[in-house]
Parts: sequence; C-alpha cells; structure tokens
Amino acid sequence: MPVDQLPDTVEALHTALPGRVDNDPALLAPYTADRSGHRSSGTPLAAVRARSVEDVQAVCRIASAARIPVVTRGAGTGLAGGAIAGPGEIILSLAEMDRVLEISEENRLAVVEPGILNGRLNAVLADYGLWWAPDPASKDISTVGGNIAMNAGGLLCAKYGVTREAVLALKVVLADGTLLSVGHRTVKGVTGYDLCALMIGSEGTLGIIVEATLKLLPVTEGETVTIGAFFNTVEEAAAAASSVTRRGHVPAVMELMDNRTLECVARYSGQDISDRGAYLLIQCDGPAAAKTAQHIASVVANAGGAVEITTDPDESRRLLDFRRSAFPALEAMGTMLVEDIAVPRDQMAAAFAAIRSLEDKYGVLIPTTCHAGDGNLHPTFVFQGEEVPSAIWAAAGELFTTALDLGGTLTGEHGIGLLKRDWLQDELGQDQYEIQRRIKQVFDPLNILNPGKVFPQQA
Amino acid sequence: MPVDQLPDTVEALHTALPGRVDNDPALLAPYTADRSGHRSSGTPLAAVRARSVEDVQAVCRIASAARIPVVTRGAGTGLAGGAIAGPGEIILSLAEMDRVLEISEENRLAVVEPGILNGRLNAVLADYGLWWAPDPASKDISTVGGNIAMNAGGLLCAKYGVTREAVLALKVVLADGTLLSVGHRTVKGVTGYDLCALMIGSEGTLGIIVEATLKLLPVTEGETVTIGAFFNTVEEAAAAASSVTRRGHVPAVMELMDNRTLECVARYSGQDISDRGAYLLIQCDGPAAAKTAQHIASVVANAGGAVEITTDPDESRRLLDFRRSAFPALEAMGTMLVEDIAVPRDQMAAAFAAIRSLEDKYGVLIPTTCHAGDGNLHPTFVFQGEEVPSAIWAAAGELFTTALDLGGTLTGEHGIGLLKRDWLQDELGQDQYEIQRRIKQVFDPLNILNPGKVFPQQA
Repeated sequence: MPVDQLPDTVEALHTALPGRVDNDPALLAPYTADRSGHRSSGTPLAAVRARSVEDVQAVCRIASAARIPVVTRGAGTGLAGGAIAGPGEIILSLAEMDRVLEISEENRLAVVEPGILNGRLNAVLADYGLWWAPDPASKDISTVGGNIAMNAGGLLCAKYGVTREAVLALKVVLADGTLLSVGHRTVKGVTGYDLCALMIGSEGTLGIIVEATLKLLPVTEGETVTIGAFFNTVEEAAAAASSVTRRGHVPAVMELMDNRTLECVARYSGQDISDRGAYLLIQCDGPAAAKTAQHIASVVANAGGAVEITTDPDESRRLLDFRRSAFPALEAMGTMLVEDIAVPRDQMAAAFAAIRSLEDKYGVLIPTTCHAGDGNLHPTFVFQGEEVPSAIWAAAGELFTTALDLGGTLTGEHGIGLLKRDWLQDELGQDQYEIQRRIKQVFDPLNILNPGKVFPQQA
Repeated sequence: MPVDQLPDTVEALHTALPGRVDNDPALLAPYTADRSGHRSSGTPLAAVRARSVEDVQAVCRIASAARIPVVTRGAGTGLAGGAIAGPGEIILSLAEMDRVLEISEENRLAVVEPGILNGRLNAVLADYGLWWAPDPASKDISTVGGNIAMNAGGLLCAKYGVTREAVLALKVVLADGTLLSVGHRTVKGVTGYDLCALMIGSEGTLGIIVEATLKLLPVTEGETVTIGAFFNTVEEAAAAASSVTRRGHVPAVMELMDNRTLECVARYSGQDISDRGAYLLIQCDGPAAAKTAQHIASVVANAGGAVEITTDPDESRRLLDFRRSAFPALEAMGTMLVEDIAVPRDQMAAAFAAIRSLEDKYGVLIPTTCHAGDGNLHPTFVFQGEEVPSAIWAAAGELFTTALDLGGTLTGEHGIGLLKRDWLQDELGQDQYEIQRRIKQVFDPLNILNPGKVFPQQA
C-alpha cells in the first residue's frame, strides 16, 4: 500500500478502539521479538489491544480495507518468530481477552477467551477437579490461544495427546472480519470438514482465534511416582526409553538429557554430574502408577540405567530439577536457538548420533534435551550476540534434513513461523505445499494474516 | 460428459486394470446401496477393484480426463449413503487393498491399506499386545479406510477418542492422480496445516485414502467390570449418566436405551422387560476398574437405577445383550432410518423429551439408543418398504433442528453423505458452508470425487 495511507489506518484504529492503540515506537519495541531471540527488521505500524470479538472484527475490517498485515499475538512466548511484527504491520494483541466464559462439569468443557494463560486456566479448573492437558514448558507464561495457534506439545503428549486433541470448538475471525464458529460443543461431530483441526496449528495465518471451547479431563487420581536414571551414553538412555514404549508402558513424562546438557547443568548448578553420559527422567501417574513405575524401573535398570525411584515430594523435586535446570543453564551461556525436530521413537538414538556428527562437522556444541516418550528432540545451539551465525543455520539446516531422512519432522511443537519457513517445502513436497498455499488463499485472499510466516513471502 | 464417451472410459479402465473392472449390471447392483437402506437412482458405469496405489492413480487419471465421478467404497457399511453410486459414476472399491504393511511396537503404530476390516486388524494387533481404538458397532464388517473417511465413532469415544485421534498419517490420491503424504509418523508434528485431520471425515470428497499410519494403544490391562441398570424413565437414566460424567468418572462404555427400544427388544427376544422405562449399560476397564465401577454403581443407584454389577463373563454378556439386541430387534420390524444426532452431555434428557414430542406430533415411534458417555443419540425410524416416507423425513428434519438448538450436531459419527446434505448449511451457516465448498475446490477442481455427497449437487 502507499505509505501515505498508513497514517489513515492508524487513525481509523484509534477511532475504532480509543485508548487501546499504541504507535509510540518505545511501546512497540517488545512486539518485534519473541522468545526465539529473533527480531523483526523494525517497528510495527501500531499495536492494538483487543478486548472483544467485535474489537478483533473491527481491526480486521480496517486492515482488509487498507490491505495492511495483521500479526496476532498472545504472550509472545513463541520460539519460531511466529508472532513478531515489523514495519507496516499491525500487532493485534489478545492478551487482554483473558476471561473464562464458562466451565461445565457435566460437559467436561471450558469456554475461554484466547488470552488467558494456560497455567492460570488450570489453576481455576483445579477447583472443579478438572484440567486442560496441553502442557508446554511455557505453560505459566503462554496463552491458551497461542497454544492452540501453534498446536502446542509439551511433556505429557505421549499419554495425554497434543493440543489438537484438547480443543472441541473455536470461534475465529477471518481476515475480512467474518466471525466463524468451527468444531462442536459435543464430544463427537462429523458435519462437514474439520475446520477446527485445520485452524489448530495454523499460526495466525488462516484466522484469529477469539474463543475456544476446551475439552477437559478429570484430575488424575493417585500418587505420582518419579524415576531418575543416569546412563553412560545417550544411546543407552534412548534405547531404554524405546524399551519402555515397546513393552507397552505409558508414563506421563519421559524426558532425556544428553551429556552436553548435563555438562552445562553441572557448570550452572555446581552439581557433580558432568561426567555422566545421559539422564532419563520418568513420571508415572494414575491408579496403576506404583506398579507401572516398578516395571519401568526394572526395564531402565536392565538397559544400563542407575535408577532412583521415589514418591517422596522432595526427592521427586530433586530428580525433576536436573531437567528443569537445563534451559536456565543453557540460557546462562549465551543466546539460544532451540531446535525442535521430532523423529519416530525408534530413531531417537540415530538422531542423537547424527547430532554428534553435526557437532564435529560444524565445530559447534549442540546440547540436546528430548521428550523421549514421543521422540521430540530440542537440539540447542548457543552463541553470542543476537544474530544466529551462518554456520549454526547451516548445521540447523542439515539437522532438519536428518530429521526428515529419519521419517520425522522439522518441528514437533514450536511451529514454522519465520525461522523454518525456508525448509517448509522440503517436508511438505511441492504438491502439498501448493495445496496448503491455496487453502491459505481460501481463508485470506488478500494475504494480510501473518504474511511471511509459515510460507516464505512471495516476491 | 457426452454419453458416447462413456464406453471409451470403461474401455480405458479395462485396459489399465485388466480383469478388475465390472460393468455387468448384476455385479454392479450391490454398489447402489449401503446399510442406510438408501438406493441410488440406477446402475453405475463400472466398478473397479484396486489392488495398489498405482491402480487408484490410474483410475483417477482416467476419470479426470473424462470428468467422470469416482465414488470410493470400502465395505459398503455406511449409514448415510456416502459410498453409493448411480448412473455415469465409477465405483472404486478398495476392499482388496487390505494388507497390514507394518506393525511397529517401538513406535506404537501400524501402517495398513484402507480395505482391511477394523476387526481383522485388531485381531492381528492383539498378538502384539496392541489395539486400534476406533470402535464403531460395525467394526467386524467395516474397513479402516471407511472408518477414517467418516471419522467413525462408536462406544468408546468418551474415554478413547474418535478416529481422528487414532490416525497419525495418510497417503491420499487426489482427483488428478497426485499422491500426497499428509500427517506424520511421529507423535508430534506441526509443519504446515493439518491436512491429515482435514482428510479424516471428508467422506471421499477431497481425496482417496490409500494408506494409513495408525496410532495404537497398549491393550488395557485388568478386569472389565459391567454395570446394568433399569430405570423408571429415560430422563432418570440420562440424569444418571450425566452424574457419572459430572463426578469425574470415565467409564469405557456408557450406553442408554429408552423404553421404546426396550419394548422392541422384549418383543424380539421374549424377555419380560417391556414395562421398564430405560436401561443404562456401563463398562469400566483399566487398573482402577473395580474401584471406579463401585463409585459409579452408587451414583447410578442414587439416581434411581436398579443396579447389577458384575465381573463374571456370563453375567456381563447377559447385561450387554440387552444393548446388542437393540438393532436386530428394530431391524426385525421393518426398514430403519437410523439417525445420529449428538448433543452436549447435559442436554441428553432434553433431547429425549424432544424425541417424545416428535413421536406425538408425527404419529411415529422413535426408539432411541444413546452413547451416553458422549451424548450421541440414535433415534431410529422404522417403516415398511424401501423409501423413507415423507412424514418420517419431516420428523427427522425437525429432529436435526432440535439437535442444533440444543448446541449439538446433525451427525455424531455416521456422516452427511447423501441423506443429510440438505441440512448441512443449517449447521455450518452460510459463511462456513462457502469456505468448505472452496476447500473442496482446492482438492478437486473438477468435482469428480464423490460429487453430490456432503454438499448438495449444484445445478
């Protein structure tokens, strides 16, 4: 659009949402980055803080009329640059749309606005003996709407599923301001195509989620049992995790850390664990937790693990803290590029071996944590400064290729956003890539919803 | 297309798949009907029995070139007319593509061709201590591909989810013969839009499922406990079921039959149960089954149920047989139109009350069974002859409106097919209807994949 129309658009936003439009560069700076460390090329046009569905519709109508991009944002905790905005773009913040609209115990559902934090929602639900299962590591600081827009994963997915399985229905505002209700308030519903599932994980490119009907679970009863085990090598630990799955056990949590990560944790926390080869953390919940945990502990011990098993809260916390301290320990060393490949569970050991080869080839360290219950690895590149060095991008690119070669994916839970769009076609293939672009056009013919995210910007 | 091109197309099919093309009207007759009782207006052009992905691609290329409709069919057990074909259409049978291609215990998945029967697959998986959860009543006679194309439900959905949750990836042949791989072999994967979920439940209108990677579960351990309870009224029984859910219990099975159905069963089986008001059948499985069942039994008794509870296999079978005999009993009375509304679980009693009003208004009996764990009701119209009488369609239409008014859906698990397409817009609304049609056009621009199903045929 012509630059001289931009002030008119800001003016129109001010008129539509008085007092909730910022265009002071100082206030806009936070919207140029997320937790990926990536930063957009400059200050966005304006940030709008919506408080209602009608607000969102008004913004979309103004943006459509002027053909100005809209970048929807929750808490800005994304790791792929999906919710950052640059020059000439409107940031549409849904952080203030954070109400719980309904909790129904009989229907085992909650209706919420998108800006509510996952952790806060779960605190409210606890009083009803209910919970919402999506459990990204960011849950205390990330929004439900953001979790849905990214189809967030987390630690519990092998047992409790990904976000898609925990959403019944959505209200979505389209680029032109149309309000659409997709999905069902019922457990089952097969009328027409599943646009609710299509919207989940679409990263703000198809529509703006303004209300979500969430499928809840009754709180899991019984005592949680925690298992921690050090191994000599990460291959042994990965093989142990595979054995647990192969034998039909379903732990709630199964997390793996390699020796590089343990070295970082040792340095950060002063613990004497830097000589260990890998650490496997497992938690079992539910009525059979004790029995299942005993079985798992013996599988892990037979696979070479030095096993501790406990139900004591303090001991559990100590075992968990090794895992929890991984990211703070890495963060203390520099800027992180947290990668997010997923591989079939029997390929975890191969993925770790490939990561070691990449370390040698590119002369970088790649400490890696892994959701071992579901084969989702977070190889992490640590560097100094703000810009990802080109050698690290080269190593990351080869990492993605490795994941695809192993039958896996570029991204298990963080999304494509800006940072992985150049590899999207490698995974989808040309035919599917074209179909996905055409689906984007069905919903957003003017390409104003988060353009340049997921799909590379077209010339 | 001009009629004189039809023989060329049949000839091309014969050449491409020698020995596997039928165009003898006697052999084609079965393809004009499914288990809905509905019949197409005449004999299809030809039936093709595919044995490979390449076969399916060849058929699609021939059909695309000649712009001839392709109706994909598995076992023909559908209840909405979704896989029946009429004049000028090709039936593409996948029944002979029925191999298990891979079972991976470590990845807890199976890769199968679409024509394998659900029951046969589960028999194979049992040897591995695994199972595939989708559990439609037709499981012994319906195909996995058909289950996926319809997003089949069944008895276990409140606990184990619908078919969508049990599919990791699909290979799909598009109308033009392009082979697409959608979804992931991994537990998690968020690259691009979720076309795998979009394909599930699309009823053969977007693409032809030629291979499926299925998410498996370890076989549930422990003894199953069965509860049967007669009630004075269906409202009491529905309230009891709601209480079970509200109190946080998750039975594997929770089935409800109203008094009309009990009358039919009594007549059919000679059992003295015709004076009972309703029957609730519940099964609990897993390690806490005994404890959970005791809790549930007391909830049900407090709600007015005359409770029997057992782990004895013969006693369990007796309690189950009331439910199992419902459809044979109804079928013995005439032709059935089995409806399939779903309502939020707290609206089940209201749905039953509405069904009683419709009986009075239209002078028909509507025996109704219900998956009470998830609010999916099967109001069943029984009539004589092949054609659904117009009074019954009128009553069914009002039933659909009632379901929507209660916050529910036209179809919980049977699909839209031919029989419910006239009500599709009522549920979707005009905006979503248009978007769904445009998505159809993205995948199938010539409208040759199951045209006239789901969406009304355009003039």
